[in-house]
Amino acid sequence: MSTSSQRLLQEFGAECISTDPEILKTYGRDWTKVYTPAPSCVAFPKSTEEVARILRFCADSKIAVVPSGGRTGLAGGAVAANGEVVLSLTHMNHLGIVDALAHTLSVQAGAVTQAVHDHCQTHGLTWPVDFASKGSSQVGGNIATNAGGVRVIRYGLTRNWVLGLKVALMNGLVLELNGALEKNNTGLDLRQVFIGTEGTLGVICEATLKLAKQPESVSVYFFALPSIQGVLKLFENARQAPFEISAFECLSQACLKNVCEMRGLYSPFKTESPYYVLLEVETPHHGGGAENLQAWLENAFAQDLVLDGVLAQSPREARDLWILREGISESLSARGQVHKHDIALPISALEAFLEEWQAEFEKTYRGFKVFVFGHIGDGNLHINIMKPDDMGQDQFLAECAVIDPELFTLVQKYRGSVSAEHGIGLLKKNALHFTRSAAEIALLRGLKSVFDPQNLLNPGKIFDL
Amino acid sequence: MSTSSQRLLQEFGAECISTDPEILKTYGRDWTKVYTPAPSCVAFPKSTEEVARILRFCADSKIAVVPSGGRTGLAGGAVAANGEVVLSLTHMNHLGIVDALAHTLSVQAGAVTQAVHDHCQTHGLTWPVDFASKGSSQVGGNIATNAGGVRVIRYGLTRNWVLGLKVALMNGLVLELNGALEKNNTGLDLRQVFIGTEGTLGVICEATLKLAKQPESVSVYFFALPSIQGVLKLFENARQAPFEISAFECLSQACLKNVCEMRGLYSPFKTESPYYVLLEVETPHHGGGAENLQAWLENAFAQDLVLDGVLAQSPREARDLWILREGISESLSARGQVHKHDIALPISALEAFLEEWQAEFEKTYRGFKVFVFGHIGDGNLHINIMKPDDMGQDQFLAECAVIDPELFTLVQKYRGSVSAEHGIGLLKKNALHFTRSAAEIALLRGLKSVFDPQNLLNPGKIFDL
Repeated sequence: MSTSSQRLLQEFGAECISTDPEILKTYGRDWTKVYTPAPSCVAFPKSTEEVARILRFCADSKIAVVPSGGRTGLAGGAVAANGEVVLSLTHMNHLGIVDALAHTLSVQAGAVTQAVHDHCQTHGLTWPVDFASKGSSQVGGNIATNAGGVRVIRYGLTRNWVLGLKVALMNGLVLELNGALEKNNTGLDLRQVFIGTEGTLGVICEATLKLAKQPESVSVYFFALPSIQGVLKLFENARQAPFEISAFECLSQACLKNVCEMRGLYSPFKTESPYYVLLEVETPHHGGGAENLQAWLENAFAQDLVLDGVLAQSPREARDLWILREGISESLSARGQVHKHDIALPISALEAFLEEWQAEFEKTYRGFKVFVFGHIGDGNLHINIMKPDDMGQDQFLAECAVIDPELFTLVQKYRGSVSAEHGIGLLKKNALHFTRSAAEIALLRGLKSVFDPQNLLNPGKIFDL
Repeated sequence: MSTSSQRLLQEFGAECISTDPEILKTYGRDWTKVYTPAPSCVAFPKSTEEVARILRFCADSKIAVVPSGGRTGLAGGAVAANGEVVLSLTHMNHLGIVDALAHTLSVQAGAVTQAVHDHCQTHGLTWPVDFASKGSSQVGGNIATNAGGVRVIRYGLTRNWVLGLKVALMNGLVLELNGALEKNNTGLDLRQVFIGTEGTLGVICEATLKLAKQPESVSVYFFALPSIQGVLKLFENARQAPFEISAFECLSQACLKNVCEMRGLYSPFKTESPYYVLLEVETPHHGGGAENLQAWLENAFAQDLVLDGVLAQSPREARDLWILREGISESLSARGQVHKHDIALPISALEAFLEEWQAEFEKTYRGFKVFVFGHIGDGNLHINIMKPDDMGQDQFLAECAVIDPELFTLVQKYRGSVSAEHGIGLLKKNALHFTRSAAEIALLRGLKSVFDPQNLLNPGKIFDL
C-alpha cells in the first residue's frame, strides 16, 4: 500500500477509502481501455463537504487526484495511471424533487443520466442530454465533459442545460455557482469555466439542471442514401422544411452491417446502400405537423434525395431503428480494437472536407477498415478505424499515430476540431495544438494555475504544465 | 490635450484618433447618465488588427482602455470617466453573408443588432437577441454583456447564440475562438470567458453568430391581472399549456399609465388593473396550434386567471401591444430621473420574494414612486424608482444608497442576483458581494490578472483590483 493511500485511509477511514485491487482496476480507467489503471486508492465521499475535505487533505499532502464519474469517457479523462487518488462521485447520487414550474432539478453529481431521465419523465419533462452510454454515465461527468450526443441539433450541448453548480476546489473551498437562476450577469460566469474542463479545475459535486418539455411525439425515419454527399444534401433539404428536427444521424453501410451482425438485427432494407440517415422529427399531435412531414417526404423521394426509406410505425419500431445507430460504438468494440476519432467541422465545410478526405484517406487508409457515423447535423463525425485481426496492438497504434496527424491537418485546414464531444483527456493531448493556438494553450495554463497552483487535480489531462 | 492622446494621435493618426470635445462627451458614457464622461481620446479602429495594435501600444505605454459599443448599457460598463482611451468598434460594422445551411453569420463587433436582424430576415432566420435598444446596441456589446431581453424564455441569453469570437488581448494577440463549430470539446471554452465580462478581459472584434429559424407566426395577447401573484399564477398555467411561449412579460399599472402618457397611447382596457401581462406564443400555420391556444384562453377566463384580455388581430396591433411593454424604460427616463434595479430570482422563489418585498418595501419606499416590470418568465424584474421632482439628485441617490442594500439583502436571502441582464459595470460594483461570494471574487481577480496583468482594460469595472 502506498504512503498516500495509507494517509487517506487513516484520515477518512475504510468506509470512504478503498485499496481493493479489483476496485483500483475498475475505477482507475474509463472506456478508453488503452491505459493501464494504477491508482493508489479510490475515495468514495458521500457529501460535498467530504469531497472538499479530501481535496484539501490531498493539497496539503501533495497527492494528485482524479475525479471520476461513470467512466464512460473515450479520451482517458478519468484514467488514473500514475498512483493518483481516484475521487469517485458514485455514492453521491441523490435526486431532488422535480420543480415543474421552474423546470429545474437539483442532483448530486453521481446521479446516473438515465436515472435523471426516468425521474423527470412523469412530469412531462426531460434533461435533454442523451446518448448511448446514458445508463452508466453520471451527471457530473456529463457536465465536466460538456457531453454531446444524439439531440445536440435540437437542444445544444450539456452546457445549455446546467443552471447551477456546487464545485469543490483543491484548496477545500466550495463554490456555489448561480443556484437556480436563469439570468445572472454579474461578471465572469464561473460555471462555464468548470463545464467541459474534465475535472482539471474543480470537482463538480452538485448541479441544478435545467429541464425541457418532452416533445408531444416524434417520428423516426431511416433512409438509404447513395453517398455521404447525398447525406449532406438531404440535411440541407430537411433543414429548410417546416418541422423541428430532433436528430439527424448518419452511418455507413459498414457500420450498419456490423451492428446488425453483432446484435442479431436486420437492416430495414433488402439492398445495401453506401450510407444511411436516421431522422427524428417532432410531430405535434394536432393535424398539420403530420401533413407537413408527409409532403416533405414525398418531395424527398420525387427529387431522388433518398434511395429508400422507412417510418417507424410504433415506439417499439422507433427504438429498433435507434439501436441501429446507437449500437454502433458498442458493436465495434465487441468486434475488435478500434481507434476512434471524433472530429467536428463547420457545417458549411463538411462537403469540401469529405471530398478531400475520401480522395486521400478513406479508400487508402493503409488497408484498415474504416467505420464512419455520427451527428452530421452538428458537423460531428466519428471515424473509427478497426485493428486488423492479424496485427499486434502496438503496431496498430504506431501506424495510427502516423496517420492521425494527416487527418488532423486536414481538419485544421477546414477550421475543424480534433474533438467534437469526447474531450481531450490523455488520448488527444498531442493533437490539441491542431485546434487550439499556442496563445490559447498558454492562457489555459495560466488559468489552470489560478485554480490549482500545485497541478494536483487531474494532472496531465488536456495539456501538460 | 493629454499626453496619452497625443501619443496615440501620433501613432495612429487623426483618421483613427479623435479628441473632439463633443466626441469625448458622447463616447465617454453609456445610458447610465450618472457619471461624467472624461476620456482622453476616442479611437475608431477599422480592423481587428488595428484594435490589436492599439491595445498593444496602450499596454506598452500603460494607458487604460475602455471598449465601447452602442453605449446602451445601464450599468456604466462603457463609461470612461478617468482619462481612459475609449476604443469604439462603431466603424467595424461589416455584415457577412448569411449561411442558410449552417444557420450562421459572421459580423464585425460594431454591427448594430437591428441591422443583423434585418440582414437575416429574408432568409427566414434571426439572431434571437431582442430588446428595446436594439436599434442602437451593437453585437460586440451584446456579447460582452451577455445581453438578455424579451425572448430569453424561448431562446436563452446571448451566450447561446455565439459560435465564434475573434478577441484582441491587451498584449496585442488576437484569439480566434471556435470559428463556426457547433461542437468543440477541447478543454476550457475561452469564448465563454469573454461573454459577459464587459470588456475587462479582451476586446471582442468579430463574431460568428448562430441563427435561429423565425417562427412561422406568433400570437400576441395582453392580459389584465389582479396582482403580481396573479401574474405568477398565469405563468404557471401557461407554462404547462401545449404551446411554445416566446415572451412572458409583465408591467404594473404605473408603468402602463406612464408609457401611455409619454407616447400618446391608450390602454387596451377601459378599466385599470394592478398588473398586466404581454404573452407571445408561437402559432404554427397548420390547424391545431390555434385550437390549443383558444382552449387554453377559454380556460384561463373560466378559472378567473385573468380579469380581461385582448389578442392582437394584425402584426400592427401586435407591435402596438409590444410598445406598451418595450416603451416603458424610455418613457420613465423621459419622465424624470430613475434609479434602476434589474434583479433575478429563482422562478420558484418569486412568489415568496414578492410577498416579502411588497410587505416591506413597495408600499413604503420612502414615498418614492416605484415602477415594476420585466421578464417575469425568466425570474427577472426591473424595479425602477423615480426621483421626486422636488428632490435634488444627490439626496435622491444618497437615499437610494441606503435602501438598495435592504433590497439586495432580500434578493440574497432568496438566492437571487443583483443583476439579471444589465451587468455590474461601475453602478453595481458595490453590490457584487450580495450575489458572488468572497471566494468567487478572489478567483475573478486572479483570472483578470492572467488576461490583463497591468489592469489596463476597462479598469474598475465589475470589481476593483
